[in-house]
Amino acid sequence: MSFIETLKAAWSAQDSLACVGLDPDLSRLPAHLPRTPAGVLEFNRAIIDATHDLVCAYKPQIAYFAAISAEQQLLATIEHIRKVCPRVPVILDAKRGDIGCTAEQYAIEAFERYGADAVTINPYMGRDSAEPFLRYADRGVLLLCRTSNSGAADLQDLMVEGQPLYERVAMLVAQQWNVHGNCALVFGATWPAQMARVRALVGDMPFLVPGVGAQGGDIESMVRAGQTANGTGLIINSSRGILYASSGRDFAAAARGEAIKLRDTINRSRHRS
Amino acid sequence: MSFIETLKAAWSAQDSLACVGLDPDLSRLPAHLPRTPAGVLEFNRAIIDATHDLVCAYKPQIAYFAAISAEQQLLATIEHIRKVCPRVPVILDAKRGDIGCTAEQYAIEAFERYGADAVTINPYMGRDSAEPFLRYADRGVLLLCRTSNSGAADLQDLMVEGQPLYERVAMLVAQQWNVHGNCALVFGATWPAQMARVRALVGDMPFLVPGVGAQGGDIESMVRAGQTANGTGLIINSSRGILYASSGRDFAAAARGEAIKLRDTINRSRHRS
Repeated sequence: MSFIETLKAAWSAQDSLACVGLDPDLSRLPAHLPRTPAGVLEFNRAIIDATHDLVCAYKPQIAYFAAISAEQQLLATIEHIRKVCPRVPVILDAKRGDIGCTAEQYAIEAFERYGADAVTINPYMGRDSAEPFLRYADRGVLLLCRTSNSGAADLQDLMVEGQPLYERVAMLVAQQWNVHGNCALVFGATWPAQMARVRALVGDMPFLVPGVGAQGGDIESMVRAGQTANGTGLIINSSRGILYASSGRDFAAAARGEAIKLRDTINRSRHRS
Repeated sequence: MSFIETLKAAWSAQDSLACVGLDPDLSRLPAHLPRTPAGVLEFNRAIIDATHDLVCAYKPQIAYFAAISAEQQLLATIEHIRKVCPRVPVILDAKRGDIGCTAEQYAIEAFERYGADAVTINPYMGRDSAEPFLRYADRGVLLLCRTSNSGAADLQDLMVEGQPLYERVAMLVAQQWNVHGNCALVFGATWPAQMARVRALVGDMPFLVPGVGAQGGDIESMVRAGQTANGTGLIINSSRGILYASSGRDFAAAARGEAIKLRDTINRSRHRS
């Protein structure tokens, strides 16, 4: 199955649009865990064990592993997801982007080394920089469109012929880059009105939506703005709000509680077909 | 010394604006070397030994290491540069970019794990995504402006209030992001007329210039367009044209020959103060 098919099956089977972001920050691990790569792996496994029936995807953020030389633990985290919930897709959050021959190497990193179902990439270098990822037709390619941070406005909101740059990105992706039907967009939860416009531009293309929870995006207005006609279309990610719900020995149970809350809050605003 | 000071000293001491890009592609290693991470390290060390007196910087491209799980060999390559030519700065080509707390982890990866003097980053997510890198005031932050690939036009050339997006990026960096004086721009060799305009906009800010050699940029017109009044300001990178000058046992000598040719071609077009 392709990423998009796996994702649709997970939306349905799990009855969830929630995604847990695995951003294991050493300084925020529960106090009883060692602040080492081994501690990170133990933490991730416990979070996955506690949430695997609640999510449509996991999103490991490679930066947190790279900063502590934990490539092996990233691999082992993904292996654990495969073992516990083989039908839940893994989105490697890497935001890569480079000229073609270098992008080929990044595609190998994401799709072959780590075996990710999908990867986030940066569109600034244009179509030929995305092509080596897009060629993996069974994998997903999630292009940054409108991000959730305040500085996003610096470039993404600049007006190009009466239209903000992020809308141009959305249209380029939908009309030109999506020849294999494996594209998705990254769209921050903090901009529901803008998300509704982009939804109208790109049809049913999935959106990965960071920025709920710690970043403060309002879930209900965002789900109403971004869902497709059948009440899906969104991969709504929370990282810190779930991972660090408790710093005690009950961290996994607390994470499960937050993940249930996220799933249910989302589901209350979904169209039901 | 800061990255910018180290770079200026290297321009002067080596009488060179040439940079060798370390993009070790397993499939293009000389036939007698093993196509393994160990073979990559042996290759890199030989290239460095053969070129260290000819360059103002080395630029390892992290994607080629990540694709083959060669993080240790990337570290050992940088250690070799430190041993052989401690005054030549190392630019980690990583093109990272993410929201603040994640960008902090990428900055740790580049500046602490690998100890790079400078790193390339992608400006699409705006100033707060660059801030965690910029805070390392003694390190260089090289922001993508106008890249050398054909697809660069898709976003970078879009017109924003009568000005291409890449010029807006150059002005944002020069006027707002460069508070620690540690910024530089990545500007492809393939666009000399555009480079001359950006040089006029940003003063003496260094440009990292990929796209000569294999990518076909014309060196002389680019040096005339991009150099500063004192005949510096440019870090002119060649990767494949130098690394793969020969696939035989003479690969290092052939690389040296190409590096000399690059340095000398550049120097013939420089103002001499």
